[in-house]
Amino acid sequence: MGFMSTDLVAGPERDEIRIEAVLHALADPVRLEVVRQLARQDGEIACGGLDVPVSKSTLTHHLRTLREAGVTATRQQGTIRLQSLRRNDLDELFPGLLDGVLAARH
Amino acid sequence: MGFMSTDLVAGPERDEIRIEAVLHALADPVRLEVVRQLARQDGEIACGGLDVPVSKSTLTHHLRTLREAGVTATRQQGTIRLQSLRRNDLDELFPGLLDGVLAARH
Repeated sequence: MGFMSTDLVAGPERDEIRIEAVLHALADPVRLEVVRQLARQDGEIACGGLDVPVSKSTLTHHLRTLREAGVTATRQQGTIRLQSLRRNDLDELFPGLLDGVLAARH
Repeated sequence: MGFMSTDLVAGPERDEIRIEAVLHALADPVRLEVVRQLARQDGEIACGGLDVPVSKSTLTHHLRTLREAGVTATRQQGTIRLQSLRRNDLDELFPGLLDGVLAARH
């Protein structure tokens, strides 16, 4: 695969995703807003395309928390990181969880 | 109501329940286990009836976190505190969330 220009940044396999880590990752207003924007997009968003009121380094930290929990997947494309929601994995493991979270008034 | 022997311990009204607080409350293995036991019971459990591997004072702390987040309701009956899950409130506010959490392998 040496000629591919994008690479998946490491995150947990589906069967390694733990509910406590997912809940912790979602239990933060900024991270929850990132998840809402990814859910609306229903695809990939570059970090710069996320509209959240934090610094770039703070956002990087939040994105790592989401990725390591298994909530999001990250692909590196040159100098750009593309985020997406692992909706299929989450819906399979915790049916209803994501929809319930996204249904919350905010 | 002076002659009633039970009193509801204060918690948030339904419209005061915040998703971030609920997720934070659920994002702990001991609190999640309490929620699982309350869900199985489908009614009230006295604190002493909860089977979790923590001290009484630690359990008290966890139960307060759950109550203040709006996940559980607490009634004081003499010297006993009875816990129950606010399933109706949570299902109304965040449909699917609780079922998704309870579906998680553990």
